[in-house]
Amino acid sequence: MEFSISKMKEVIKAETDKRVSREAAEELSADLEQRGKEITQEALKAAEQKGRVTVRAEDIKEALN
Amino acid sequence: MEFSISKMKEVIKAETDKRVSREAAEELSADLEQRGKEITQEALKAAEQKGRVTVRAEDIKEALN
Repeated sequence: MEFSISKMKEVIKAETDKRVSREAAEELSADLEQRGKEITQEALKAAEQKGRVTVRAEDIKEALN
Repeated sequence: MEFSISKMKEVIKAETDKRVSREAAEELSADLEQRGKEITQEALKAAEQKGRVTVRAEDIKEALN
């Protein structure tokens, strides 16, 4: 899994004093990993359209719009 | 920043052979951090409505719907 359980618990714990189950952390990890992949795919299209070999911040921004 | 540049580059590099600028990695990090916070906030509401002290996977799933 791309994002560790401990990192996901850290993200959730930053917002609350509640306990966080391992499965909750895994669920969040899976979602963020999926979103990361989707944004990347869109950003790659943007970079390729411009004939660039580097993915830049503007490509990520374009992917988010 | 919640997600490290190296981790974000890893996510992007898993999808492509292109280079990835530091700013692109920062942009992705900021987006995923924001999404993580939003999902957490929604999941907390779900857990609180049920009077639970633990955030469970079902709360995350509910937040994603």
